[in-house]
Amino acid sequence: MIKAALFDVFGTCVDWRTGVADFVRPMLIERELPTDNAEKIADAWRQLYDPAMAHVRDGRRPYVTLDVIQRENLDIVLHELGLEEHFDDEHRNHLNGAWEALPAWDDTQETLEILKQNMPIAACSNGSQTMMRILAQYAGLNWSMICGADTGRNFKPHSDVYLKSCAAMGADPAETLMVACHADDLDAAASFGLKTAFFPCPKEWGPSEYITESNPDRFDFYAVDFPTLAEQIIVASK
Amino acid sequence: MIKAALFDVFGTCVDWRTGVADFVRPMLIERELPTDNAEKIADAWRQLYDPAMAHVRDGRRPYVTLDVIQRENLDIVLHELGLEEHFDDEHRNHLNGAWEALPAWDDTQETLEILKQNMPIAACSNGSQTMMRILAQYAGLNWSMICGADTGRNFKPHSDVYLKSCAAMGADPAETLMVACHADDLDAAASFGLKTAFFPCPKEWGPSEYITESNPDRFDFYAVDFPTLAEQIIVASK
Repeated sequence: MIKAALFDVFGTCVDWRTGVADFVRPMLIERELPTDNAEKIADAWRQLYDPAMAHVRDGRRPYVTLDVIQRENLDIVLHELGLEEHFDDEHRNHLNGAWEALPAWDDTQETLEILKQNMPIAACSNGSQTMMRILAQYAGLNWSMICGADTGRNFKPHSDVYLKSCAAMGADPAETLMVACHADDLDAAASFGLKTAFFPCPKEWGPSEYITESNPDRFDFYAVDFPTLAEQIIVASK
Repeated sequence: MIKAALFDVFGTCVDWRTGVADFVRPMLIERELPTDNAEKIADAWRQLYDPAMAHVRDGRRPYVTLDVIQRENLDIVLHELGLEEHFDDEHRNHLNGAWEALPAWDDTQETLEILKQNMPIAACSNGSQTMMRILAQYAGLNWSMICGADTGRNFKPHSDVYLKSCAAMGADPAETLMVACHADDLDAAASFGLKTAFFPCPKEWGPSEYITESNPDRFDFYAVDFPTLAEQIIVASK
């Protein structure tokens, strides 16, 4: 019996690659820099995300919010791409806001609304509550509440993020569904007793080849897209 | 310029007295106890709320969520009213859930929706995030996010609750409006730099005489009811 649903956000609900690239592109044009740097920045920035959070998860660094980590990583990205000299501190701080201005996928808003009529839904992202609040307003994601990294004072896949988010929702892990397009997020959630729901977001990484999940049977719910998945979840929650 | 609005909940958005009394009454009938105990329990319980939180605010006790405090206070209430023997631990734990099953005032849901089309709105209650999530679902309060006591790890009127809730909303205190039907809540918010909006909820304490706020000019916004107040706020946010 499913009583509440937690959602991964970056990738699962919003198109971070398009959003970040669209945010960066006008700044590149203004500087007469090649615009193919827009996607390069988005991809390089996303690649640094997980290794940087690992320092917090492993206890090597006290919890800091994701926007702090993203801002640090931006310096590395701009250095790697040879773009350092073109962005001063103020521009970098502005650019860091790209992660709060990402578009939802076409079917996300409507499907979340349908699900919300059946159960409370919450963001369970590695983004901070503040980032998620601003992003929810931008992308039109009508959460029942915002859980995730700030709730657990850690980053997924650390158990605190999942378990404290369940507690904040007022539901036991076994009654709570974690929804994501990332198998590793769901495998972690399952290991802490949550139910899991997977659907693929093949456009998340842009035109890169999408690698199909080879073993979807291990998830409690699996569908080819979010609307189909939501139908299954609603049936199972009745 | 108002960018975000925080709301007191108990009294301002929901009718705790009717809600608690309606929750208790069937339990009294079941036990063949006088039903006027329903309102007595609600009132006595509410009276103990603030003194108990003061221990946390003053640093005499580490932060605990409000449901823990309410559960402790319930024991005192039942003792004071001579009802101790009629409620065992399991019944008391059940009864403690009354504070998550409170009806919204008639105009609350609709007015919050109108406001939410203009700015993000958040619960900023002394109730925990979990209590507020469940209550929001029960009462149909469609928050953008849930802030308050858990966000500040303290209770209003401690500064941490107001200031960390502003931060979680991603707004400066001077851009954030605290909305309440309680002058003391707003006076505290104002002292920490927030804007304030007051409207009276004369039915909050049931048939007791309602004492009109004698000096409403000190609030940034004041109106006779929530819909009128919301109109003022929206005009000022444009």
